Amino acid sequence: MASKPVNTAGLRGQSAGETALCTVGKSGSGLTYCGYDVADLAENATFEEVAYLLFNGELPNQAQLAAYKSALKPMRDLPDAVKSVLKLIPKDTHPMDVMRTGCSMLGNIEPEKDFSEQNQAANRLLAAFPAIMCYWYKFSHDGVEIDCMTDEDSLGGHFLRLLNQEEPSEQHKRVMDVSLILYAEHEFNASTFTARVCASTLSDMFSCITGAIGTLRGPLHGGANEAAMDMIEKFKSPTDAKEQMSGMLARKEKIMGFGHAIYRTSDPRNTVIKAWSEKLAAENGDTSLYDISVACEEFMWDTKKLFCNADFFHASTYNYMGIPTKLFTPIFVCSRLTGWAAHVMEQRANNRIIRPSADYTGSEPRKVQPISAR
Amino acid sequence: MASKPVNTAGLRGQSAGETALCTVGKSGSGLTYCGYDVADLAENATFEEVAYLLFNGELPNQAQLAAYKSALKPMRDLPDAVKSVLKLIPKDTHPMDVMRTGCSMLGNIEPEKDFSEQNQAANRLLAAFPAIMCYWYKFSHDGVEIDCMTDEDSLGGHFLRLLNQEEPSEQHKRVMDVSLILYAEHEFNASTFTARVCASTLSDMFSCITGAIGTLRGPLHGGANEAAMDMIEKFKSPTDAKEQMSGMLARKEKIMGFGHAIYRTSDPRNTVIKAWSEKLAAENGDTSLYDISVACEEFMWDTKKLFCNADFFHASTYNYMGIPTKLFTPIFVCSRLTGWAAHVMEQRANNRIIRPSADYTGSEPRKVQPISAR
Repeated sequence: MASKPVNTAGLRGQSAGETALCTVGKSGSGLTYCGYDVADLAENATFEEVAYLLFNGELPNQAQLAAYKSALKPMRDLPDAVKSVLKLIPKDTHPMDVMRTGCSMLGNIEPEKDFSEQNQAANRLLAAFPAIMCYWYKFSHDGVEIDCMTDEDSLGGHFLRLLNQEEPSEQHKRVMDVSLILYAEHEFNASTFTARVCASTLSDMFSCITGAIGTLRGPLHGGANEAAMDMIEKFKSPTDAKEQMSGMLARKEKIMGFGHAIYRTSDPRNTVIKAWSEKLAAENGDTSLYDISVACEEFMWDTKKLFCNADFFHASTYNYMGIPTKLFTPIFVCSRLTGWAAHVMEQRANNRIIRPSADYTGSEPRKVQPISAR
Repeated sequence: MASKPVNTAGLRGQSAGETALCTVGKSGSGLTYCGYDVADLAENATFEEVAYLLFNGELPNQAQLAAYKSALKPMRDLPDAVKSVLKLIPKDTHPMDVMRTGCSMLGNIEPEKDFSEQNQAANRLLAAFPAIMCYWYKFSHDGVEIDCMTDEDSLGGHFLRLLNQEEPSEQHKRVMDVSLILYAEHEFNASTFTARVCASTLSDMFSCITGAIGTLRGPLHGGANEAAMDMIEKFKSPTDAKEQMSGMLARKEKIMGFGHAIYRTSDPRNTVIKAWSEKLAAENGDTSLYDISVACEEFMWDTKKLFCNADFFHASTYNYMGIPTKLFTPIFVCSRLTGWAAHVMEQRANNRIIRPSADYTGSEPRKVQPISAR
């Protein structure tokens, strides 16, 4: 096979369209949603405000936010047919396969009939994803058919309540909110780009989001926070962490949660989530997971000049909140759904079917030989 | 919003990678699979040989083909859990949503655990897709739980037998085979590109194919043969067709099945399927649907210099074989799965994550205002 032309591999640096939703690595802390720095949003807004921002281009006022949250609340439950499907999915299934199938099935039962329903479809998925994840998880792992409705004010609180079946603390609710804000949107990453390619054929919202989930499932995209957790929970202490990571580097093993395809010196989301991990460690009393994480961060910077990305301190953060590691990437889905759906709406508003070309590297023209002569 | 830069809209003409699988509009009749002209394959090969070609790069010899067909045959049935899911999907669901959900669910029950299983996963989908389509269709429409296994030698014959629950004629089996060959592969079209973007994160085969199905679902991609059928069955005669199309053009209504994003003067697949439509018309005795189709072709060429693409004479062809219009695009899935899966394998063999950039058209940097001040 001919060598890859540098300019086309992975379309890196190639513009594939326009967006008003996000900048990555361009200004401020390096990540903005509709002009707002992600750190500013994480400090001064809630996830529902960010979802509203991405879907409407502006942050809501008090009345708009109240109306939006009131609209989302009754959409949290699942149709019986979706619950029946989730009950048929085995316990050892990849949780991202569950999200993909649950999303696809919901699209059968409550299809987006035309684009006038796009906000309804996006909001339905936003409200229902925590239930898709938790209903399957609790049934397959504990044999319990949970009630998918809660009175929790926020989607983050709703998710924690479904998962743990008890009232979450105010601090945990706020951390989940921040986490959902940090993961909400990231320009033309691979899963979002999948959603836009799908949208460009004028397919429905559920198809676009189902495809995006399948793309986020890949270990080069989602899953880094799970891999980080798998690693740090093997380390006994900060010293042990540095020793073991040294061995991993020597053996050229991949270490997840560091560096980024676009950011060059730091990931703006790391500062935010790291601070919350520290607070949760203090609350917990046992700070070892946080201390080990800091040791990892120091080690990777000192030896490889690699910085923590958004995923690394998410591992300890989620763990301190009692979230099973296998649900880390599905939480990413609950958040990024907002960015995906906003990009679908944007693609539809100014659409041309996304159909690139390819460089041919195959056989010269040839004739089919009779099978007896092959 | 700023005007679109010509070079990035839809990535038209922009190379997004390499392929050895296909050329479109470059040589011979304009469409080649692994160097073979599609018309040559349609004349001198079977669909299973083409699937083997796309997955292995070479046409099989007699022994290889026999072994391949023997391997595919026992994979035609569906797991009980997939059947249970299909029974939960309402009759009025878009059949492409059914294919998407069936594919996703099969990936839960029989996951591709690692890439060493990629041929197994592709072959499983190839063998099982006719059952996913027909099991749902017969249950939701007729209340019948069909047996998903048949002794038919070919996948085309297997599909016709599942659908009609009777032995298909030799001619119908051959026509279905040709149709599956014609739709099998088409370079970096939108659904295939979706599969490759998904594959580029190293996601699993079922995620890639599920995303591709959702993309093909869009009316700008799949569905043109269904739209063509909806139109021609309204015409009473060739003369009526020309009169009504004239009115449609005057009202600027979209007429499906003509022209192509890449081909400029003709679609190489049209000659092949048109000839089969004519033969089926003669077999049927009532040639009116074929005659009307020919009148449409003449009219569109005479008035707009637009040629029939692969979809237009597929409409009458499928109709002559008694296939319900709503299953036309799912048949496309059964065929194009071969191209999609081959592209997934090719992407994996020389991968870089597909992550383009975007031109930012949004708000300047701004500060989050307190909600009370908005």
